[in-house]
Amino acid sequence: SSASTAIRATLFPGDGIGPEIADSVKQVFQAAEVPIEWEEHYVGTEVDPRTQSFLTWESLESVRRNGIGLKGPMATPIGKGHRSLNLTLRKELNLYANVRPCYSLPGYKTRYDNVDLITIRENTEGEYSGLEHQVVRGVVESLKIITRHASLRVAEYAFHYAKAHGRKTVSAIHKANIMQKTDGLFLKCCREVAEKYPEITYEEVVIDNCCMMLVKNPALFDVLVMPNLYGDIISDLCAGLIGGLGLTPSCNIGEGGIALAEAVHGSAPDIAGKNLANPTALLLSSVTMLRHIDLHDKADQIQNAILNTIAEGKYRTADLGGTSKTTEFTKAIIDHL
Amino acid sequence: SSASTAIRATLFPGDGIGPEIADSVKQVFQAAEVPIEWEEHYVGTEVDPRTQSFLTWESLESVRRNGIGLKGPMATPIGKGHRSLNLTLRKELNLYANVRPCYSLPGYKTRYDNVDLITIRENTEGEYSGLEHQVVRGVVESLKIITRHASLRVAEYAFHYAKAHGRKTVSAIHKANIMQKTDGLFLKCCREVAEKYPEITYEEVVIDNCCMMLVKNPALFDVLVMPNLYGDIISDLCAGLIGGLGLTPSCNIGEGGIALAEAVHGSAPDIAGKNLANPTALLLSSVTMLRHIDLHDKADQIQNAILNTIAEGKYRTADLGGTSKTTEFTKAIIDHL
Ligand SMILES: CC(C)[C@H](C(=O)O)[C@@H](O)C(=O)O
Ligand SMILES: CC(C)[C@H](C(=O)O)[C@@H](O)C(=O)O
Repeated sequence: SSASTAIRATLFPGDGIGPEIADSVKQVFQAAEVPIEWEEHYVGTEVDPRTQSFLTWESLESVRRNGIGLKGPMATPIGKGHRSLNLTLRKELNLYANVRPCYSLPGYKTRYDNVDLITIRENTEGEYSGLEHQVVRGVVESLKIITRHASLRVAEYAFHYAKAHGRKTVSAIHKANIMQKTDGLFLKCCREVAEKYPEITYEEVVIDNCCMMLVKNPALFDVLVMPNLYGDIISDLCAGLIGGLGLTPSCNIGEGGIALAEAVHGSAPDIAGKNLANPTALLLSSVTMLRHIDLHDKADQIQNAILNTIAEGKYRTADLGGTSKTTEFTKAIIDHL
Repeated sequence: SSASTAIRATLFPGDGIGPEIADSVKQVFQAAEVPIEWEEHYVGTEVDPRTQSFLTWESLESVRRNGIGLKGPMATPIGKGHRSLNLTLRKELNLYANVRPCYSLPGYKTRYDNVDLITIRENTEGEYSGLEHQVVRGVVESLKIITRHASLRVAEYAFHYAKAHGRKTVSAIHKANIMQKTDGLFLKCCREVAEKYPEITYEEVVIDNCCMMLVKNPALFDVLVMPNLYGDIISDLCAGLIGGLGLTPSCNIGEGGIALAEAVHGSAPDIAGKNLANPTALLLSSVTMLRHIDLHDKADQIQNAILNTIAEGKYRTADLGGTSKTTEFTKAIIDHL
């Protein structure tokens, strides 16, 4: 039976529109005969003391065991005594690189038609250390931590990715003219790794200048690697260039080859359950998951079906200016497989 | 004589193209009969021990005495034992707010035609504290400092500016979902000040989302106020939307009402001395200096002449796709006065 040869993958449908767009992925995978068997896990309603989060230990174990997973949007529940779901996943699974391919979608018009870049964000330290304290009343400080270990690791991943995907240039984004020691160490690590990849052009771009160049001419960029906060900012900026977070895939890479792909848009509670959500970001994220395990044929087949459906323009969800329901758009993608 | 009624202002022509674009300002001011007498100061060739910088104590004293100044681009000379010129000015003169109006220039086409916003950046602390150290080999940290004093001060300035200029909304830009204590304090201060300005709408926008919204629809924003690094990033991003740093004015505000206007683009050594530089950013910066001392008639007259010259399109410098020399473009502006 196919079950015996199937690859197991963890699925977090997530909140709000999550279950609907996760259904879309499941249907497309089934139609494309992708040999994946989903192991679904849900966000708990009580804090699991082992994770200090609404994410249970079992769900994290599932990703660790399977090595791959897909995650819908998760709204962090308001309350005390628990950690953000996204940060829990990154920390517990040691998801050190966040990879976001960003390219103009043929037929979906924005102000830009020549975007084709990948942002690779260090995902575990930097400005996200969580180390903050009040020095005296009215004076607070926050620690940005940069380590040689994590900087080398994400730089290695960026160059490896560039080479494996036939990319030409890696740009390290920084503010080392101001943060000479922290961003300086990050750059030093990137330079060390760059030496091992003479076939890849390496350059360094100051973050403010990078943002200006991105809005003037994004075609100048190829693969970008950077510390945590800069990656947070620049990946959203780039998503904006091609239409928003509803269209951009994301994949988190961890030690030992773990990959957790995710839609990075919100859970859109206002349209949840109404069959109105756009599943594109989660579908394209599932494609990055397939590429991670080298199922490139299936990945190409699904990616082309998504892009062709959007390019054709007959079936589009409301956020893209169309009138299609989630299920109609999904059916159209399946027809394009 | 006019000299007796003239207002004295400090002028730092700066390096590279600085002297040429400063000449342009001097000519336009003379033609417009602006009652300003320039007191020129230059960057030294040796470090002044009193400032630890190539900026002399006398030049800083000049700005303090006059209360207003205009600064061309200054390339920080490479070497040891001195501080960046820009940072020296900010620190020594306590220039706590950096104000950058950014608007689409009629007739100069970019991807955006509806930009009209002002970024107000906290200019003295945050990620620019300069406090960095190595904890152990391979682990470095950098301190981001947020104080109640500086946050209230820049928030006050932003709301005051919004009210004085007939603006409707102030948006505080932050990442308080991650940096809860530091950016949280910044937001708390903005909220306190917002209460005193019920006629101004106040909102809070997370920096990553802000950058995405800016590239999708900059018309959503009016006045933006934010900590140092976010201001550095967002002001350059916004400049990119309307054509780049060659077109955007900047003005630094200090305690006691000091104002140092500046072109924030580079010194372009490659075209220095060739009569090719675009003086627009320095000219528009000089206009913000005039507004600061309430010379609104002269400011309007000069600003309109600049904008009309660019809109007409007959005289433009090479960076804007034209063939005019700096002096020809300046003459055209004078003819439009
Ligand atoms: C929700 C938030 C904590 C998160 C981040 O800042 O990393 C988000 O913006 C992202 O990019 O995944
Ligand atoms: C030159 C550099 C130190 C400066 C900064 O980062 O503030 C520049 O980018 C600016 O915006 O004025």
